[in-house]
Amino acid sequence: MSRPDLLARLAAAQADRAQAALLRRLRTVDAVDGTDIVVAGRRLTGFASNDYLGLAGHPELVEALATAARRWGVGAGAAHLLGGHREEHAALEEALARWTGRARALLFSTGYMANLGVLQAVLARGDLCVQDKLNHACLIDGAHLAGAVLRRYPHADVAAAQRQLDTAPAAPALVASDGVFSMDGDVAPLPALADLCRTHGASLMIDDAHGLGVLGPEGAGSLAEAGLDEAAAPILMATLGKALGVAGAFVAGPAALIEGLVQFARPHVYTTAMPPALAAATRVAVRLAREESWRRQHLAALIAQFRLGAAQRGLALAASRTPIQPVLVGASDAALAAAQALEAAGFFVPAIRPPTVPAGSARLRVTLSAAHRQSDVERLLDALARVLR
Amino acid sequence: MSRPDLLARLAAAQADRAQAALLRRLRTVDAVDGTDIVVAGRRLTGFASNDYLGLAGHPELVEALATAARRWGVGAGAAHLLGGHREEHAALEEALARWTGRARALLFSTGYMANLGVLQAVLARGDLCVQDKLNHACLIDGAHLAGAVLRRYPHADVAAAQRQLDTAPAAPALVASDGVFSMDGDVAPLPALADLCRTHGASLMIDDAHGLGVLGPEGAGSLAEAGLDEAAAPILMATLGKALGVAGAFVAGPAALIEGLVQFARPHVYTTAMPPALAAATRVAVRLAREESWRRQHLAALIAQFRLGAAQRGLALAASRTPIQPVLVGASDAALAAAQALEAAGFFVPAIRPPTVPAGSARLRVTLSAAHRQSDVERLLDALARVLR
Repeated sequence: MSRPDLLARLAAAQADRAQAALLRRLRTVDAVDGTDIVVAGRRLTGFASNDYLGLAGHPELVEALATAARRWGVGAGAAHLLGGHREEHAALEEALARWTGRARALLFSTGYMANLGVLQAVLARGDLCVQDKLNHACLIDGAHLAGAVLRRYPHADVAAAQRQLDTAPAAPALVASDGVFSMDGDVAPLPALADLCRTHGASLMIDDAHGLGVLGPEGAGSLAEAGLDEAAAPILMATLGKALGVAGAFVAGPAALIEGLVQFARPHVYTTAMPPALAAATRVAVRLAREESWRRQHLAALIAQFRLGAAQRGLALAASRTPIQPVLVGASDAALAAAQALEAAGFFVPAIRPPTVPAGSARLRVTLSAAHRQSDVERLLDALARVLR
Repeated sequence: MSRPDLLARLAAAQADRAQAALLRRLRTVDAVDGTDIVVAGRRLTGFASNDYLGLAGHPELVEALATAARRWGVGAGAAHLLGGHREEHAALEEALARWTGRARALLFSTGYMANLGVLQAVLARGDLCVQDKLNHACLIDGAHLAGAVLRRYPHADVAAAQRQLDTAPAAPALVASDGVFSMDGDVAPLPALADLCRTHGASLMIDDAHGLGVLGPEGAGSLAEAGLDEAAAPILMATLGKALGVAGAFVAGPAALIEGLVQFARPHVYTTAMPPALAAATRVAVRLAREESWRRQHLAALIAQFRLGAAQRGLALAASRTPIQPVLVGASDAALAAAQALEAAGFFVPAIRPPTVPAGSARLRVTLSAAHRQSDVERLLDALARVLR
């Protein structure tokens, strides 16, 4: 037999990527202090975290975690259906359903698993799945896993989404979109997508990983901001590891959806439940995210400051009003060089390159947090202007 | 337009399942005390957890979690490649590589994501993926996601696996198997699978979720027990939420594999890193699992006691020498009734029904833990004999 060796092929693919300035490098953070991080012995101001509200290091979350771990142990030890579902999970699910205005919610260990689970459970082979081209990787993977016919439309183009739906006017159909796009920061055209689904008999699924906590009244997310309830947008997914500062994810919607996921979502059925202590910490985060609106106000002020300052300095901003403020560079090697120059100047801002973003659209992904100070943003703007001049 | 409604279809599928005595029910555990759990107001002795070494509630793990959360915060806030990779992750990866005798290791948030990530990164469309029919759901899903040609062989039948490999003698090929089968408890024929892969130019991948911590010298797992190093079995996946009592997973193997996963495994690239505090707790668990061999000795004694007692009572056991000791029942409604009768007698032992196990092979899945006492096992045996008489 002379089969190609799988690992040799993997190494060759990696070498190709290195030649194209597309190699990923895993770097270790040696310490964290607010938004500062220590990497390779140097203290850097970080503009890379998705901890938009500055809750990840909040003492109340830390103490809720410790207290719950003393009561429940660290791991859940079993899948939700086999004894792993603890009162902490149930209480968090109720809190998330109330916050998002949905009938019920169901926890998953990660957003990746939640999206795979929903698409696999809801879609059958040959169903139509219409998606924005810039959707997160796991929405794409979920459609493939379901065996659905995946049709992608140009970013935020609702007329194109309608044409995709019209290709199979009688097929069961789901339209799926990020609520806030993770590498661009813009908000999906949610009311138009909901209208489209209503008039075309499709179901709408929104991944609000980057909108929950940040947008809408009490931070209830992009759908709440747009006034879209569960009749208009029956499938809401969001994560707990971004604005809420913990880890994990949930799906919220009508009881029929949640019951169906309990039965059929393989990444819920066949996996260990998330540690109950994480659920306890997240419940505190939900309360703080709802109550402490000053976090969103300060964040909005930083976003306005960043955009004004960037415009004054002639930086190429995206059309984003969220904490994700990419600075477009274009070529991968130039974006990488800019990230390295920023690091030399004391800032951690990652370069995002293909295939994460489309070819030719490499960028610096700046993310802002309520834990930043105005002076942090001002220093970053000056450094960006120097580096990208 | 008159498309079928996706949620109405989901509800109909659930109703079908209810009619076949196959409905899953999410039950909330209100308290935990050692192996005891409180469900619906009643204290039950649990034989359902995968916390095989009794580490999930260990005070040293709990304190490591709390201490690390004070230092690092709760969530990592970003993907590994975008600033989420903390020194706690790196230290745990090193500890896991040393323990399993592999060059390197890479953390994932769950075993589900680790297996999807490996198969997606290593296999290309049209490659051959040969799998045991009783493999975990996520190995099956991973092969589908990779677009590989999935060929399954009858459980533990290495000659059949060879015939599957021979169907495409020049194709790049991976053979994947659970190390310990999650619903049966038996150990895969690892030396024969390794021989097969060596002589047929295929790569071997073992999911040791239920073997790590339990089998082999210092609990290094089923591959260590079989004396198979990374040349013989280059891809090892195991989880951190079972014998180690925490949550998450890792892949271990040669540097080329790990580097390739960093580049190409979408569920590693596009997801928030697991909380560093969980990594800190897991590192303590690895040390305890290696050092405290009395846990494995006590567990082995409980397994022997259970099997002897079950044989004396005429119970239908599986050919398992691990903590997973299924008691075969057959019909789904009978298994469910037995689980309910056990609960009335003070025991929590879940009924496992299709599609988790093949039709007609419903069972009670008894799992033993080093946290059980001999008297717990004796009481369970008596109850099983009464219930299944």
